[in-house]
Amino acid sequence: MAGFKLKVYNRTREKLEPLLKLGAQAVNFPAETAEPGSMVITMLSDDAALRDVTLGSHGLCDSFGSGSLHLSMSTISPDTSRDLAQRHRQAGGDYIAATVSGRPDAAATGKLGIYVSGASEAKKRVADILRTLGRNVADCGEDPGAANVVKLAANFMLFSAVEAFAEALTFAEKQNLDRNAVMKALCDNLFDDVVYRNYGKLLAEQHYDDPQFKLKLAFKDLKLAIQCSESADAPMRLAESLHNRMLSLIATGRGDCDFSVIGRGAAEEAGLIHANN
Amino acid sequence: MAGFKLKVYNRTREKLEPLLKLGAQAVNFPAETAEPGSMVITMLSDDAALRDVTLGSHGLCDSFGSGSLHLSMSTISPDTSRDLAQRHRQAGGDYIAATVSGRPDAAATGKLGIYVSGASEAKKRVADILRTLGRNVADCGEDPGAANVVKLAANFMLFSAVEAFAEALTFAEKQNLDRNAVMKALCDNLFDDVVYRNYGKLLAEQHYDDPQFKLKLAFKDLKLAIQCSESADAPMRLAESLHNRMLSLIATGRGDCDFSVIGRGAAEEAGLIHANN
Amino acid sequence: MAGFKLKVYNRTREKLEPLLKLGAQAVNFPAETAEPGSMVITMLSDDAALRDVTLGSHGLCDSFGSGSLHLSMSTISPDTSRDLAQRHRQAGGDYIAATVSGRPDAAATGKLGIYVSGASEAKKRVADILRTLGRNVADCGEDPGAANVVKLAANFMLFSAVEAFAEALTFAEKQNLDRNAVMKALCDNLFDDVVYRNYGKLLAEQHYDDPQFKLKLAFKDLKLAIQCSESADAPMRLAESLHNRMLSLIATGRGDCDFSVIGRGAAEEAGLIHANN
Amino acid sequence: MAGFKLKVYNRTREKLEPLLKLGAQAVNFPAETAEPGSMVITMLSDDAALRDVTLGSHGLCDSFGSGSLHLSMSTISPDTSRDLAQRHRQAGGDYIAATVSGRPDAAATGKLGIYVSGASEAKKRVADILRTLGRNVADCGEDPGAANVVKLAANFMLFSAVEAFAEALTFAEKQNLDRNAVMKALCDNLFDDVVYRNYGKLLAEQHYDDPQFKLKLAFKDLKLAIQCSESADAPMRLAESLHNRMLSLIATGRGDCDFSVIGRGAAEEAGLIHANN
Repeated sequence: MAGFKLKVYNRTREKLEPLLKLGAQAVNFPAETAEPGSMVITMLSDDAALRDVTLGSHGLCDSFGSGSLHLSMSTISPDTSRDLAQRHRQAGGDYIAATVSGRPDAAATGKLGIYVSGASEAKKRVADILRTLGRNVADCGEDPGAANVVKLAANFMLFSAVEAFAEALTFAEKQNLDRNAVMKALCDNLFDDVVYRNYGKLLAEQHYDDPQFKLKLAFKDLKLAIQCSESADAPMRLAESLHNRMLSLIATGRGDCDFSVIGRGAAEEAGLIHANN
Repeated sequence: MAGFKLKVYNRTREKLEPLLKLGAQAVNFPAETAEPGSMVITMLSDDAALRDVTLGSHGLCDSFGSGSLHLSMSTISPDTSRDLAQRHRQAGGDYIAATVSGRPDAAATGKLGIYVSGASEAKKRVADILRTLGRNVADCGEDPGAANVVKLAANFMLFSAVEAFAEALTFAEKQNLDRNAVMKALCDNLFDDVVYRNYGKLLAEQHYDDPQFKLKLAFKDLKLAIQCSESADAPMRLAESLHNRMLSLIATGRGDCDFSVIGRGAAEEAGLIHANN
Repeated sequence: MAGFKLKVYNRTREKLEPLLKLGAQAVNFPAETAEPGSMVITMLSDDAALRDVTLGSHGLCDSFGSGSLHLSMSTISPDTSRDLAQRHRQAGGDYIAATVSGRPDAAATGKLGIYVSGASEAKKRVADILRTLGRNVADCGEDPGAANVVKLAANFMLFSAVEAFAEALTFAEKQNLDRNAVMKALCDNLFDDVVYRNYGKLLAEQHYDDPQFKLKLAFKDLKLAIQCSESADAPMRLAESLHNRMLSLIATGRGDCDFSVIGRGAAEEAGLIHANN
Repeated sequence: MAGFKLKVYNRTREKLEPLLKLGAQAVNFPAETAEPGSMVITMLSDDAALRDVTLGSHGLCDSFGSGSLHLSMSTISPDTSRDLAQRHRQAGGDYIAATVSGRPDAAATGKLGIYVSGASEAKKRVADILRTLGRNVADCGEDPGAANVVKLAANFMLFSAVEAFAEALTFAEKQNLDRNAVMKALCDNLFDDVVYRNYGKLLAEQHYDDPQFKLKLAFKDLKLAIQCSESADAPMRLAESLHNRMLSLIATGRGDCDFSVIGRGAAEEAGLIHANN
């Protein structure tokens, strides 16, 4: 626990066991995790869950006060961050959004990429914590929603890169080339980064059964990006194309695969694999 | 000239001047550049031009013989490479396709990425030359068309990455974030490669007036990829989306800009820039 | 009032004036329009407004009872209809969804196309009313949400037809043909129905300033169709393409035009019209 | 033969048998069908075939002279029509493009829709013939390529309408509605024309095995439209979306079905039908 006193809350208490064994104290309501001057970290599945935990009955806001800091790590809409930041400020507290890029194994080894935004003084308070989680912390500015915007953009670019790579490998295979050789050539010559290396391997091997990032959750993030693009009047045509790809794969039963199953969608469409094998 | 005897041909003789000053000898027909045992390098604008120079009157095939090697570096369809390779073989010669990724400044400093394919023995003959041109030579196998397939795939992925990055930065700017900060955060945390770094900078600065790779030439390559996808029954939905983007920009007068003007297209569509400014 | 006793409610009382002059009685709450055995007609802007009027404080459900009938004519999601139908049934009442196709002048002359769904007995009760409104009443079955599904499908097909016609006329004009002649030829030979005739005329003349169906409202309906397609796992790729078209036009200031301004979007994209003229 | 003297040519002589039985005279070369003052009708599969028959060895142009008229009924690019018209004019002849909309049974009963373009005097000469073929003859103007432009536009709109209807019926079926009832409601209320009636029936019944217009031929026409849109700088985003749909269906073995098999593509994508059943 690195010397911190830790109070933990989860709707499903069993999920807290690992932390309790390390000395954390379970509490019965979100509000009990907070007190003036303390820091609370939330990581929830969507805007509604975060709003409930924060603004609902026995929520964080009940016990927030001067010097409280809410470090919000969920993938949510920027407008929710902006709204919660304002409410916390009214109580004398702070709100920092910190979002992450990286598959679970990156988290375990402190190699996440982190996007952080919010008031400067408050960002200093969380700097140490974020440094232990991530290999790089990118400061996205004072707007509390900025880290959420960048996270949605990052996921959108990730999905686009995987779709493009999937189509390229399908194209190459239909021309009778070897998927692995093509993948390696493209990474060595042009796309030499962790995204293309990691997903290129999955796509070349058509290996989609280790769902580190499930398609149905990726689709949730894509829909959130599209909603934000609607409210900001920012058309994203690739996002709309990905919407079709992902929804088709979900409709045909692949929602629980890793989202890189996009590669299987591209292959089926080209007649390389039959849809119900 | 690195000790080689060099005969050079171009339809526009003036373009040869720099090489003639270095000691090269200008000839009047493509056929005069070749003789049994020699190696000929071609780099032409499209399939028709390469076919003309190779198979036309006074073309390379007139003087090809045992031990001749045609090193073909154009961005052309794989089927043309396969066809020419077969014809050269019949005359006792060889054909190697070697295509490149990289902007002009990469060529000048020997930092191109190279894709090479064809018969193994012939590839050994060109290995030294390719190594002086490129930082990495990716062997794509024995199929003479393979290097062309991979080049088309590479360009397609390049265009897709730029489109996705352009949409992401537009999305961020419409949410009042700073394009440069977002670009840097995404490269630092996730897309840390030369493509995203170089084009991210152009997109963040909206700087499209240095046409190292003109949009109209990029569109030519995209159309070639789509044609190959048609003949191979390999649907590429992002290619079709890019077709619309590029053709729209050409129709509104941006064909001579760098192809990264895609970023301007995304910004105009979101109302960030007026189309005729 | 055709012999009916009419109680009317609107959040903005002034809007009721024309009806009050005809003898209708204004009430203060939605609940006051209903009583056991009576029929209530609602036409509201979205799901939330209908839910509020029906289920909210002093809402319809407060006074619904045996023999009450709710005739719901809003463009809403089918799931809302299904939910309200169930609640009304529990109180002994009925819920019928009746949605319409047609521009305002069609409504004034009783020429709307109507889609109706719900329990058979209840449909008989509303048959006369619907016949006075529409030239055709299409029975979509017992599922109370069916008329909403068909309305969303109808609008989606309408938008698609206008987009396709707009692209076709742009294509023809860029080939130096006359938009009006082409429009007429296509309607005479193939698309001889009221949709293509009416919108073809607007598109040929590039006349988008009489907003009988505003783009921003059309976009709202499109988004509702996409949401329902998500919940039903039914990918609609043209809907996604239309999403991009409409959002781009809204982002560049055309949200208050008639939705057929899609034709202007297609023309601008082809360089026929400058975006900020 | 309606009193005309008829000379007929086909590369495959057997195909002429029905006409020979009616008294037509088979000839050995295209050139033998023409003479000064006569009229020649061509209907060929593509631009290359028409060019070959017209400009090739023993082609029509060999025997064209003053008063000759070439009535060209193929689905080809407008530029080929414009080119041939000019060549015929130089020889004192005329060229009229007349293209048709309608399935084969419409042709048999004289119910085709016809688009005609070219010089006014020459159009008068073909007026009677066209009236016997079609229920309506739409004059598209003097540009000899105009009838080809409109035909490509008509096919594009036809494919778009079928795609939209297919998606709408899939959407409805996934919401548990009956495809036939929805199809009928949409045609009765809004899309009451022959295209939606005919194809709506095929789509509602998922009946794609009577290939009156094969998918692979429809795809050929779509590609021709896209090529013309490229040369005219006229982006057509729905055409690009249809390109993906059709190529996917061809890649998975449906090229010989009727093109309305698009409806099957939409249903598979939504998980309603398994791809290899």
